[in-house]
Amino acid sequence: MIQSGDIGEKFALFSEHWRPKVIASLNGQEVRIVKVQGEFPWHHHDDCEEMFMVWKGRFRVEFRDRICDLGPGEYVVVPRGVEHRTAADEEAEILIFEPADVLNTGNVVDETFTAPRGVSI
Amino acid sequence: MIQSGDIGEKFALFSEHWRPKVIASLNGQEVRIVKVQGEFPWHHHDDCEEMFMVWKGRFRVEFRDRICDLGPGEYVVVPRGVEHRTAADEEAEILIFEPADVLNTGNVVDETFTAPRGVSI
Repeated sequence: MIQSGDIGEKFALFSEHWRPKVIASLNGQEVRIVKVQGEFPWHHHDDCEEMFMVWKGRFRVEFRDRICDLGPGEYVVVPRGVEHRTAADEEAEILIFEPADVLNTGNVVDETFTAPRGVSI
Repeated sequence: MIQSGDIGEKFALFSEHWRPKVIASLNGQEVRIVKVQGEFPWHHHDDCEEMFMVWKGRFRVEFRDRICDLGPGEYVVVPRGVEHRTAADEEAEILIFEPADVLNTGNVVDETFTAPRGVSI
């Protein structure tokens, strides 16, 4: 069973925001795609880094002391333990690389934003 | 020190084929970019999966029993231990996601194709 696909087609399969979908699992990591709009809660991940890459739209990765404002094809790696939040004024499509067990809201549990893990598409 | 960048700009910084460059390191993994043209040697990786994603051009990931012919935004995960080779009739630009210690030619050492690891860009 080979994992393969078309990222654009995968994004076309769903419309909800802030609910990452797994498109590939390898070496204990996952590649996830997510649609975003608005502001995500501040949080951090104690045990891992996470990488965001913009597929479509504009997307901000905000740290307490700086903001990375990203367009298509731009990426940033959030260092472990560093507080951050993500945001987008209009809908954006994002790829995430991180370990398979990472909760999207890190150290925070948020009724609206904490998403189930392991949802494949 | 935040790792960030623009993938298109990173590809513009080099021209050689089959020499992966590291654009991000996280959780023992690396995101590498590589320009390819021609056929790579058959090989496998005993201990890990590797993911290829096409940034630009057309690219084949060939297995002994099938060929994945990929265009921009398409991806495939090569299962561990499975023999494969990559190929492109014309120059293509590829993202690779795999553990940091992976040798590009896997179990094979090839005078032309085996590339140094850990070359960042």
